[in-house]
Amino acid sequence: MPQFMDVHTGMVGVTPEQLLEAHRADLAIQDDEGVVYERAWLDPESGKVFCLATGPSKEAVMRIHERAGHPTPEVYEVTVEV
Amino acid sequence: MPQFMDVHTGMVGVTPEQLLEAHRADLAIQDDEGVVYERAWLDPESGKVFCLATGPSKEAVMRIHERAGHPTPEVYEVTVEV
Repeated sequence: MPQFMDVHTGMVGVTPEQLLEAHRADLAIQDDEGVVYERAWLDPESGKVFCLATGPSKEAVMRIHERAGHPTPEVYEVTVEV
Repeated sequence: MPQFMDVHTGMVGVTPEQLLEAHRADLAIQDDEGVVYERAWLDPESGKVFCLATGPSKEAVMRIHERAGHPTPEVYEVTVEV
């Protein structure tokens, strides 16, 4: 299954609880698109969030994030991992 | 130990072998700064590389990447992970 890294910006000051809540919103609906959100990392100072997911397509990953309330246009298919 | 995500751009067309070679160049010297590069993901189409590392500081992570020949100014301390 293809793997994706997506990047959110502007999440300055987001708390661990808020990140967990956002992640759970993805998990709750991800089956609809065959997506699995694996991990998310937050830098609350710069406001960056990185999410690692697998799924059938970039568009599927984007749709889950959109429906969960935190859309991002920045989704990369990471075809190589070391 | 603090955790960091860094982002490289412009790596269009990089091969799996080249990514592995670059990652090994980090691993070979990372002990000098107490840094541990854990994983790296590449999207050769957009040219983005994401590296997850632990280390004592953002500057230490940057110095290893610089010395290994692939500097980036984009290093984020990811203090929250879900």
